[in-house]
This record gives sequence, C-alpha cells and structure tokens, in this order.
Amino acid sequence: MNSPVRVNGFVCKNPLEVNADDFFKAANLDKPRVPNKVGSNVTLINVMQIAGLNTLGISIARIDYAPLGQNPPHTHPRATEILTVLEGTLYVGFVTSNQPAPNRNKFLSKVLNKGDVFVFPVGLIHFQFNPNPHQPAVAIAALSSQNPGAITIANAVFGSDPPISDDVLAKAFQVEKNTIDYLQD
Amino acid sequence: MNSPVRVNGFVCKNPLEVNADDFFKAANLDKPRVPNKVGSNVTLINVMQIAGLNTLGISIARIDYAPLGQNPPHTHPRATEILTVLEGTLYVGFVTSNQPAPNRNKFLSKVLNKGDVFVFPVGLIHFQFNPNPHQPAVAIAALSSQNPGAITIANAVFGSDPPISDDVLAKAFQVEKNTIDYLQD
Amino acid sequence: MNSPVRVNGFVCKNPLEVNADDFFKAANLDKPRVPNKVGSNVTLINVMQIAGLNTLGISIARIDYAPLGQNPPHTHPRATEILTVLEGTLYVGFVTSNQPAPNRNKFLSKVLNKGDVFVFPVGLIHFQFNPNPHQPAVAIAALSSQNPGAITIANAVFGSDPPISDDVLAKAFQVEKNTIDYLQD
Amino acid sequence: MNSPVRVNGFVCKNPLEVNADDFFKAANLDKPRVPNKVGSNVTLINVMQIAGLNTLGISIARIDYAPLGQNPPHTHPRATEILTVLEGTLYVGFVTSNQPAPNRNKFLSKVLNKGDVFVFPVGLIHFQFNPNPHQPAVAIAALSSQNPGAITIANAVFGSDPPISDDVLAKAFQVEKNTIDYLQD
Amino acid sequence: MNSPVRVNGFVCKNPLEVNADDFFKAANLDKPRVPNKVGSNVTLINVMQIAGLNTLGISIARIDYAPLGQNPPHTHPRATEILTVLEGTLYVGFVTSNQPAPNRNKFLSKVLNKGDVFVFPVGLIHFQFNPNPHQPAVAIAALSSQNPGAITIANAVFGSDPPISDDVLAKAFQVEKNTIDYLQD
Amino acid sequence: MNSPVRVNGFVCKNPLEVNADDFFKAANLDKPRVPNKVGSNVTLINVMQIAGLNTLGISIARIDYAPLGQNPPHTHPRATEILTVLEGTLYVGFVTSNQPAPNRNKFLSKVLNKGDVFVFPVGLIHFQFNPNPHQPAVAIAALSSQNPGAITIANAVFGSDPPISDDVLAKAFQVEKNTIDYLQD
Repeated sequence: MNSPVRVNGFVCKNPLEVNADDFFKAANLDKPRVPNKVGSNVTLINVMQIAGLNTLGISIARIDYAPLGQNPPHTHPRATEILTVLEGTLYVGFVTSNQPAPNRNKFLSKVLNKGDVFVFPVGLIHFQFNPNPHQPAVAIAALSSQNPGAITIANAVFGSDPPISDDVLAKAFQVEKNTIDYLQD
Repeated sequence: MNSPVRVNGFVCKNPLEVNADDFFKAANLDKPRVPNKVGSNVTLINVMQIAGLNTLGISIARIDYAPLGQNPPHTHPRATEILTVLEGTLYVGFVTSNQPAPNRNKFLSKVLNKGDVFVFPVGLIHFQFNPNPHQPAVAIAALSSQNPGAITIANAVFGSDPPISDDVLAKAFQVEKNTIDYLQD
Repeated sequence: MNSPVRVNGFVCKNPLEVNADDFFKAANLDKPRVPNKVGSNVTLINVMQIAGLNTLGISIARIDYAPLGQNPPHTHPRATEILTVLEGTLYVGFVTSNQPAPNRNKFLSKVLNKGDVFVFPVGLIHFQFNPNPHQPAVAIAALSSQNPGAITIANAVFGSDPPISDDVLAKAFQVEKNTIDYLQD
Repeated sequence: MNSPVRVNGFVCKNPLEVNADDFFKAANLDKPRVPNKVGSNVTLINVMQIAGLNTLGISIARIDYAPLGQNPPHTHPRATEILTVLEGTLYVGFVTSNQPAPNRNKFLSKVLNKGDVFVFPVGLIHFQFNPNPHQPAVAIAALSSQNPGAITIANAVFGSDPPISDDVLAKAFQVEKNTIDYLQD
Repeated sequence: MNSPVRVNGFVCKNPLEVNADDFFKAANLDKPRVPNKVGSNVTLINVMQIAGLNTLGISIARIDYAPLGQNPPHTHPRATEILTVLEGTLYVGFVTSNQPAPNRNKFLSKVLNKGDVFVFPVGLIHFQFNPNPHQPAVAIAALSSQNPGAITIANAVFGSDPPISDDVLAKAFQVEKNTIDYLQD
Repeated sequence: MNSPVRVNGFVCKNPLEVNADDFFKAANLDKPRVPNKVGSNVTLINVMQIAGLNTLGISIARIDYAPLGQNPPHTHPRATEILTVLEGTLYVGFVTSNQPAPNRNKFLSKVLNKGDVFVFPVGLIHFQFNPNPHQPAVAIAALSSQNPGAITIANAVFGSDPPISDDVLAKAFQVEKNTIDYLQD
C-alpha cells in the first residue's frame, strides 16, 4: 500500500507477488447491518476492499433496509446497478432524464418480491424503499464499475461542505430561502 | 428518418447518400434565448440535431443566463462537461460523491470571468449561477457524448410524472411531508 | 420482439413505449434449483431476460450447489465475475494464463464462507466446488456484461457438436486416443 | 508536478488535495490572438492546462482567423471535433477516407455563419478558412479527448524533423523532386 | 446481405445461421499483387470481406512493394498498425503530432529487414518505402479495428472530389497556386 | 526499465526520450522455430517486446507447426485473433459458448490453404492443426490487444501449479480420478 505505482489512483502490485487474497474479501455480506437515519445501510465491496478488481469493471453490495427504511434517491456517476431481493419486499424506481414529453422525468417504479431482479441505468436517480412496517428487507446489488461512486441527492444538494448558497437553491427548487435552510439543517 | 435501421436508437443513412448537411446545423447559437423560470436556457446541439454525430462522442451547447439566473443543480448521466464564459460572470460548482471524509460531498466552486474554462466531471451534480443583478451571461459548453442526457435535480426528484411518494421523499430529505408537498407543487 | 431494429443483435423498443417492466424480471432467484449432473445450477439474468439491460454492461446470477456439487471449470469470454456466498461453503479458484514462470498457470484458490466475496478476472478458467458432503450451497454472482457468455471447458472441448477430432485432442492433452474417446462419451 | 505517479503520462494528485483549481483555467478565451503565418491561432485547453481533465475525454479551444486566414488541413488522431462560429464567416470542410467510389476522398464542405455548428469526424483531414478579406472570424471548438493531438498536414509531411526524403515524397505526390524541395523550404 | 438489420452499418445475421464461412476468407494473401502508380498494393481483409469480424476490432492486410515502390504517407483514422516484413527490405517511418518542441513533427524512421516488426500509432502519418531498386518487398500488417479506414495524404489533399480550393491549399502549403495546381493534376 | 512509473503495469518513458526503437523489434519472424511437444511454436510480439505498443491494442505473432503438429486448444482472455497461412495447410476451428441449442458448443471448423484468412472471436476456445504428415506449416496471427494473454486448456486445467484437485476434475469431466491423474501427469 506504500507503493508509488498506481493505476486509476490505486496501488499496483508486482505480478509476481499476486495471490488469492488480492481477489478476496471476508466481507460478512451475510450479516445484517445497523440502518442509518433513513433506515438503510449499504455495504459496498469495490476496488478499495479488493485490489484485484482494478480495471475489471464490477463491484457488489449488500443493502439492508429497516421496516419503512429506504436507500434514498441517489445516482451512481459511473455505473449501472442490477439488484435482487434476498429478504422482504422493496418498492423501487428511477426517473428518466429531461427528455421531450411525454418521457420527461418519467418515474418508472415496481414492487419487488424476494427473488425479483431490477435494473437502474447508469447515472439515473433511483431509490429503494421497504414498504413493510414490521419486517426488514435485504438486497444484493451489483454495479458495472470497480469504483461506481454514489451521490445521495439530499446530502449532495442540501448537505455539502461548504453548503451551496441558499439563494441558489431557493431559486432552483422554486421555494423560499427558509425552506432551503430547513432542508439544509 | 423513416428507415428501419438504427444504431443507438438513431436512424442510419446509406453511406452513399451522406453529405455535408449530415454534419451541419444552422443552430443560431449566436442568438440570445428567452430564459426559463429559473433564469436560464440551454440550447443543446446533439445527435438529435446532427445525425452525423452518432457514435462520435461529443455535443455542444449555448447557455443563456438572465441576471441572477441559474442553470440549476443537475447531472449528465453519460458525459463530462467543459464550459467557457462568453459574456458576463458565472459562479459555478460541483459536489463530489459520497467519499470518505474529508472528501464527502465536498462543494468545489469558482467564480468564472469571460474567457475562463471550467470542467464538471461525468455524473456529478453541478450548477452555474449568474451573480450579476443587471447583466445577462452567456457560456458555450461541450459534453463528451453525442447524447449526454441531463437530469435537473429539482424536476426529477420533486416534479416527476407520476410524483415520487411524499412519504419516501419526506424521509429521504428528513423533513415533514408538507415541506415535500410544497416542493412538489 | 418482432421489430426489425436491433442493437447488439437484440430488439430495440421505441423509447416512448419503455416502461418499468423493461427493467424487471420476476426471476425467482430466491428459489433453489435442481442441480445438473455435476451438482450445480446457474440461473443467469442477462439481456435475454431483461431487454433494458442492453448496452449497460452487467448481469446477475444465482448459483445452486448440491453437496459435493460444483460449477465446473469454465470461462466467461466477455466478463469479470464477482461472487458472494449466501449459504454454505465454497472452495473456489482460477488459473492464471501462460505467463512466464513462476506465474505460469498458477492456481489461486480460497475457501469461502457465507458473506465472503471473490473475483474471477475476465476470461480466466475458474470453478466453484461445494466441499460439504451434506449441505447445499448458494451464491449470487454478478458479471461485467449484459451478455457475458459461458464456456464450460469439459463440454466445449470434449462435448462439442460435431466433436473435435480425437487425434487433435489426444496430442493436445498428451494421452492416448481411447482416453479422449472416454472423455468424449 | 514532481510526483512520480502518472496516469496517461500525467501527474496524479492525492484525492485529499484536489480543489476547484484543478478543474479551472483562466484561459482568456475571450481575447483575440495574433494569427500565425497562415492566418490563424488555436488556443487549446486540454489536460496539460487542466489536470482534472485526465481520463474525462474532452477539451475546448478558441480559434482566431485573420481575414483570408485559415486553420490549414489537419487531423486529430484521437478526437472528433464540433465547432461553432462566434464571429464572422467560415468555409469549412473535410475529406472522406479511401472508400470505394463514389465515396473515395469525397470533399464535404459548408459555409458557416455566426451560430452555425459543424462536425469533423475523428481522424479525417479538415480545415477552416475565413473567406472575408476584411473581417476576422472566431470559433469555439470542442474535441472528444482530453489530449486530442493535432497533425498539420503541411508541417508533418513537408516540415518534419528530420525531413522525409524528397525521393519518397516526389513519388508519393507524383511530382518532381524540386517541387518537393520547394514545399519543404 | 439484404437484411434490414445492421450494426455499425453492416448486416447482422441470425445467430442460428452463423457458420465457419462467416469467419473465413479465401483471400489469396500469398499471391503477389500488381503495384499501383506509386509502386504498392494493399490487400485489406476487414469486416467488408469477413462479416464475423464486426465489433471484434481487428483486420489484416498483405502489402506488396515494387522495387523503389512505396505505400505513400497516409493515416488510419481508427486504428494502430503493426507490421512485419515477409520479403525484402522496407524503410518505414511516422511523424509525431504538433507537440511542443523538440517533439514537434519529429520523424521516427527505421530500416526493416525480413522478420522485423514495427508499430504505427493510431492516426499518425506514416509510410513504407522499398529502397531496393531490383527486388520487390512484401509485408503483413494488422490493424486494431475491423474497419480501420485509410487516408492517403496526396489523394485526400490534392485529389479530392470536388477539389479543395487552390487558394486554400496555396496558403496552407505556403506555395504559389500554380504549384498546387500541378500537385492537383 | 527501472522507472517507478507504469501504465497497465508497464514502464512509461519520458516522451522527450521516445525514439523509433520504442516501436521496433528485430523479431526474426522470418525464421522457423523449434516446435514444442505438441508440434508448434508461437512467437508473440506484444508490449513486453515493444514498449511503444502500450495502450494501442494490437500485437502480432508467427506460429510454426511441425508435420501433424498443433497449436492446441486455447483461449485469449483479452483479444480476438485473425490469422493467415504463409506455408502449408491448417485445419482450424473454434467452439461457441453455452448458448441455447442448436448453437450450444457448436464446433466451427475450416481447412485453410496458403493465403486464406480466419477469425477466432475473443475468449472462445480454438486451435490450429497441421494435417500434413510431411510438411510444416507457418501462419501469421494478429491479436486485438497489446497484451492478449493465452490460456492453453490442457496446461491450465491439468497442469496448473499447484494442481486442481482430482476430485473436482473427475466430476467436472465425468470420469474416474485415475483418468484425471493420467491427464495431470
């Protein structure tokens, strides 16, 4: 990890020293995680955890959803996502881009049961919501990049460091500044 | 345009019939446009306007900004953007993805004067704002796709068709449902 | 499905008619499958099952392993695979290519427990084996192509249609022709 | 700039130290440039000027044309170009490759006025000429690479260092050696 | 060949009807060809001759050189070329792009004997010349595209249809119009 | 070669020091090679021999075949191959992947004479065999990667280091363990 040699910003190992551990992670993806404040937890295994993934264009994640929890609206700037439900039920959807009507910002959604599969195309805003008030849900998702990135809309727009000016956001969202300030808290 | 043959969803022409007009658009990019409700107007010339762009991975746009107008927070799911200011001043920025602190949702911004150049990396949320209360601004932007797409955050999250459930959004943005309803109006 | 318009050989839909079902498959990935003669069963959800995956570069699979069953040595000509164990234990490995010694045809292997993650780089021969004589195992795997392909070595080399000449194979594997004939049965 | 770590030959920065200036250049693209001996001046902003462009696949340029000046026949080995006219008029064109007749070396040209857009496909020989004997012209061009390269035909063929043998060039251009020598001066 | 379905502009076959002939061409690459007026002949086997090459990114060519013949300065807009000499001797070279001095339009050349290998990077102007006044030469070249394209500089610049204006070319090559007219004949 | 700077794992040179030798190899591809135990010899010129090939996506090889010799069943994990016969006759073929019947593991083969061209698509198992008991054969092959890799099936499956368990292989190939042991010797 101290090597000065990097590809895509990640350390490269001498091929003579590569072994099975460079393609392995004891990731405990079978274990439930504690949900965050919106009721979900994403455990992503990407090139940061498995160095051998570099340049190979894929990563995998376990997602836990508390009852009524959600993986809130977000995008992956460099990956398409494919997801299957392991436990529970998920209400999922994505919004199309600013195409001409009638496709402008069309919201495509679906209720997924255990074993169903759904695709979120690269760069589109999407979310998953567990509609069950009593039972958690679990999904496995895969992403078409070893470093897909994730942008949670609420955090990036209303929680950046430093904050985006409330003047800008008030006009962008066509509301008063105090509404923006409330969202930024 | 009635041909059944398409690549990337766009009609392909018989190579024997290709001529200079397939690489040309009288786009009037020198002409000011009427700003929309947030004070901007994007005139994008992509593969929909110039069929010869198909597979070539680039497009160009003129952006007009009214005084205090903005091109509100948005992403391009399939393109990086590079922009130069033709007239006026712009305050621009983008927010990094959910990286580990201290890089988590870092807001990088800059004031651009005439002739300055700025880059918005693929898929990241960005905006441009004209801070001048009296003068309009104009920029030329180029995008690294013949069909970059654009997702205006406010419209996709709070203005989709049909709307995303206000239950989901209230939790995602950690506010009351009536705040979401107000944003959705 | 009768449209004459295809990209990558798959039918393209009019964007105006796209809906959530084009990104969805009721795949029953939660259900065990009957193992084949070597004790495994791969249920792959790719662009053949979800048309919306076309050009998006990812697919997902459930793999069932009987006690002592295996997903036998095979390659994916167009994809890297990342796998996590849902149930049971797997002994997995891949063989490196004809590099100079000491890396020539090096066999890298690992025992995976529930929740572990392993990567099989694009085009390399790999397998998974369930070493438990009493319990089945289950894995979810993702592949970096919407149409990864799979080549089971035993079938492609000794079970092709028509068969490869046993003269050729006897010399290739440095054994007598009757050994090849036995393998081809 | 002294870091030993490079991607694509360019220095990589520690992500923790990245800031807005890595995506910015005070390029003065609003300012006219002094034309060269054929009456033009290209100011290209690529990864050499903006380090953050690395791997992002785009660059931008201002081109100035003196009255009757030209950006002489050239190619970009790694990029398509899209151009719009800011000031004046341009006569532009490109030549198709050695396809079968009647498409063999077809010259496609167009007169562009202010606000028009034209595309020069990757690798094809193209030029822009200002036909106005009294007024300069200005264009903004974008290229689909962070390091597109440019090969001016006259300079590469007749002005290389060392020169290409006049024997070779005389036969290639089907003229006498003294014509080549004249061109090489 | 009458199918309306194309990828990259080429007809696609029903996978069920694909056979070995779709990957084969009786190309007679062992047979000498009659040289053209500059003393060479390129026999390229690309996706036009072998339909199965589509999307696979490679093609191959035999090149014949008469004594003192040449494959004149040209570029491949979409491919790097690698070449080996089968018979005779070749003097080969390419010119670098408009980089800052001392690399500006540097001419890199080499004399190749039988069995030697040389690389011409994508998009750069290059040529091969047979310096032997008595013996022909033969090379096999491979290109990193199923449809690499070729642009012979002399033909594209001075022999296009219609011709490029001699006013433009005179200034570009810094010579008198009658020299251009002579080159265009 | 001691530089700490690498791209794709290979040393990068300062552009100011690049010269023609970085694109050249005195490879002696005109010289016959001594065949290995299965009667062939592959002389591959890739990025290990020519540093300038890095990122350019192509390589070239001479293949010698003894009478009744073969280049045994193998795959290239990162390249399509195109081949032409220089001397003798070759019986060549490849096997399609596990597609639905009737295309499942279809063996497509062809007899090639001097000057014929054949294509082996990326990642598929293929071989070449010289059916002539008295005469050697020679081919030139090109591959669509500067580092295509090669996996000889017999060596990777039955000759890896350490060996794959004969339990696993016996079941995979549906034979007794002593047959596997015989193959592994």
